[in-house]
Amino acid sequence: MRVTQAALVGFMLMAPAAMAQDKATIDKLNADFMAAFNKGDMAAIGQMYTEDAYLLPSGGPMVKGRAAIQTFWTNAAEGIGDFKLTTLDVKPLGSDGAREIGTFTLKTKGDKPQEVAGKYVVVWEKTGGQWKLATDIWNADK
Amino acid sequence: MRVTQAALVGFMLMAPAAMAQDKATIDKLNADFMAAFNKGDMAAIGQMYTEDAYLLPSGGPMVKGRAAIQTFWTNAAEGIGDFKLTTLDVKPLGSDGAREIGTFTLKTKGDKPQEVAGKYVVVWEKTGGQWKLATDIWNADK
Repeated sequence: MRVTQAALVGFMLMAPAAMAQDKATIDKLNADFMAAFNKGDMAAIGQMYTEDAYLLPSGGPMVKGRAAIQTFWTNAAEGIGDFKLTTLDVKPLGSDGAREIGTFTLKTKGDKPQEVAGKYVVVWEKTGGQWKLATDIWNADK
Repeated sequence: MRVTQAALVGFMLMAPAAMAQDKATIDKLNADFMAAFNKGDMAAIGQMYTEDAYLLPSGGPMVKGRAAIQTFWTNAAEGIGDFKLTTLDVKPLGSDGAREIGTFTLKTKGDKPQEVAGKYVVVWEKTGGQWKLATDIWNADK
């Protein structure tokens, strides 16, 4: 009985710690994503997605698989820059997944640059000890 | 050893069956969602979400919680109708969750009705034996 209680208390203490750690991991990965995007390292961006990931871009057709996603971001980078991601909420999904909700801002390139603000959902999967984006969807606030 | 092998084979057979069952359950829930939406039963729509669900509407601010989500859909129904959902992919996330990807079409109301096509991601959670929408985000293809 004491073991069970200890295990239960241990679990209750661990769960928020694990969540905080997931959040910290995802914050770090998002920092990597922004840095890679803003310096144009699209191979690094591609490697952040699972091999069979889904990308659901706002205003465009669905994109499936790492190679196609890398091509998408390569093309997108011609029209946008100053990409910023802010994580709002991370929720563990089983032992090897998490759902992230966040907001983004970016600036369009060209003669009349505009700031676009929006929000996104990412489902992360841990494969081979590494968190990767498995599903990535966003939309604009306006 | 035979038990282990049998368990492994059982697991391998079960996993796709469980996935097919999740897909069937979600198809049924989406049919319920469409029926409720198209007849204006927004209380039923609200009950399909978890108490603390997130809704991330395309072109509008994030909405948090069942009551606010019900209000969102009540207002949205004034401007849109003929809501159709088609599930493309369901992936289990732990034992009590799933990530759904699908497409939708709807028609705007008014003098010049337009058809809008898009895609969505829903994270479903099983609470008290019932699957509910916990995170719901979509965007238009154009």
